[in-house]
Amino acid sequence: MLRKTYDEELKILFNKLVEMGALVEEQIQNSLTALKNRDEKLASQTIFADELVNKMHKEIEKDCLNLILHQQPVAMDLRNISACLKIVTDLERIGDHAQDIAEISISLGNNKLNNELDELNKLFDIIKVMLKGAVDSFVTSDIELALKIKKMDNTIDYLYAEFRKRAIMSIRESPTFAEEWVDILQVAKYLERVGDHAENITEWVVFSVTGEYVDSLKNPKRMRD
Amino acid sequence: MLRKTYDEELKILFNKLVEMGALVEEQIQNSLTALKNRDEKLASQTIFADELVNKMHKEIEKDCLNLILHQQPVAMDLRNISACLKIVTDLERIGDHAQDIAEISISLGNNKLNNELDELNKLFDIIKVMLKGAVDSFVTSDIELALKIKKMDNTIDYLYAEFRKRAIMSIRESPTFAEEWVDILQVAKYLERVGDHAENITEWVVFSVTGEYVDSLKNPKRMRD
Repeated sequence: MLRKTYDEELKILFNKLVEMGALVEEQIQNSLTALKNRDEKLASQTIFADELVNKMHKEIEKDCLNLILHQQPVAMDLRNISACLKIVTDLERIGDHAQDIAEISISLGNNKLNNELDELNKLFDIIKVMLKGAVDSFVTSDIELALKIKKMDNTIDYLYAEFRKRAIMSIRESPTFAEEWVDILQVAKYLERVGDHAENITEWVVFSVTGEYVDSLKNPKRMRD
Repeated sequence: MLRKTYDEELKILFNKLVEMGALVEEQIQNSLTALKNRDEKLASQTIFADELVNKMHKEIEKDCLNLILHQQPVAMDLRNISACLKIVTDLERIGDHAQDIAEISISLGNNKLNNELDELNKLFDIIKVMLKGAVDSFVTSDIELALKIKKMDNTIDYLYAEFRKRAIMSIRESPTFAEEWVDILQVAKYLERVGDHAENITEWVVFSVTGEYVDSLKNPKRMRD
């Protein structure tokens, strides 16, 4: 069998990465739907499906190491693979957060905070665009798109801070629901982290293409998991 | 200049990893001290010092990729480097959590919840042992130690769950302190995550030595960031 060329192997790798990006987006969506509808079955499915995310993570990682071993890439090619190794870790963590949210939805039970859950969907609407854009910007080496997506994390941070303020006010007004609020605030925090991961991905794109770390990678305040 | 042998390069790599483990432990310690004493200067120093953690992360990662490129390791040697790439990411995330805690300590201001902060030190006493043991078990390929450390995460999870229950009870009793409690609970959550990272490291040790994923790596419920 002829050994595949570097470009062919890279194309396969990138397709897998796009597939994994779509999968974790779906996982987050399902976890929020399960939370909103108190759908224990969907929550359990989401938790179970994280195994698939972990499997893809291991597979892509193995592909990256094999590419380095067999194709001996240098300069931008090596940075590209090295960025891919980081991005796949960010995607895997997003999958973990879908699972975290699904677990909270199971433990939460029925309560009266359903209107607040709609607010979380506003966060998710932005996250969805960020996730797809971040992975696309990597596979097309599109720095302009990467930087556009990166900026969107400011909106996520703002919406999270507003949600937190409202949660604390509501707890003070109705302390009976303290536990439910603590849980829902944790869900918002996970979504905020998903935004951070999408932002991380855009920063690996800039590193991969230019060899330079974008500002926030140098600024420790922005390096988050 | 003669090229260093694989074993020599690996030894240098492992020394750096031990150094980084000690550094993130110190960072967590400093963040908790800053929180306890409302020491804004120490908190700022801790936030700033995360740049050093990030620098070590990048350096070790580069060393790993170079080892793969130049020494072409296979089988257990490749698993070893691949595990090292994962462990360094776990250590970097622990550093991020030190920074997260330091940021909370700055925003928290003075309040009456100082006794509760002592409880967090109980969590840290265990985390300290886990962190050192986890990194040591990797550089000495000591599976027995790795499995012993791994079990300690159950205690962390238990202590966190108890702390959470108490926090929610306290919020219901004194809703005025809702914001402070939400913040302190978040600190406890970060410490619980640090325990998860230490546990992850022990699982990479098992993978590195045996080529097998330990149970919890297969079980999606335990793969956390």
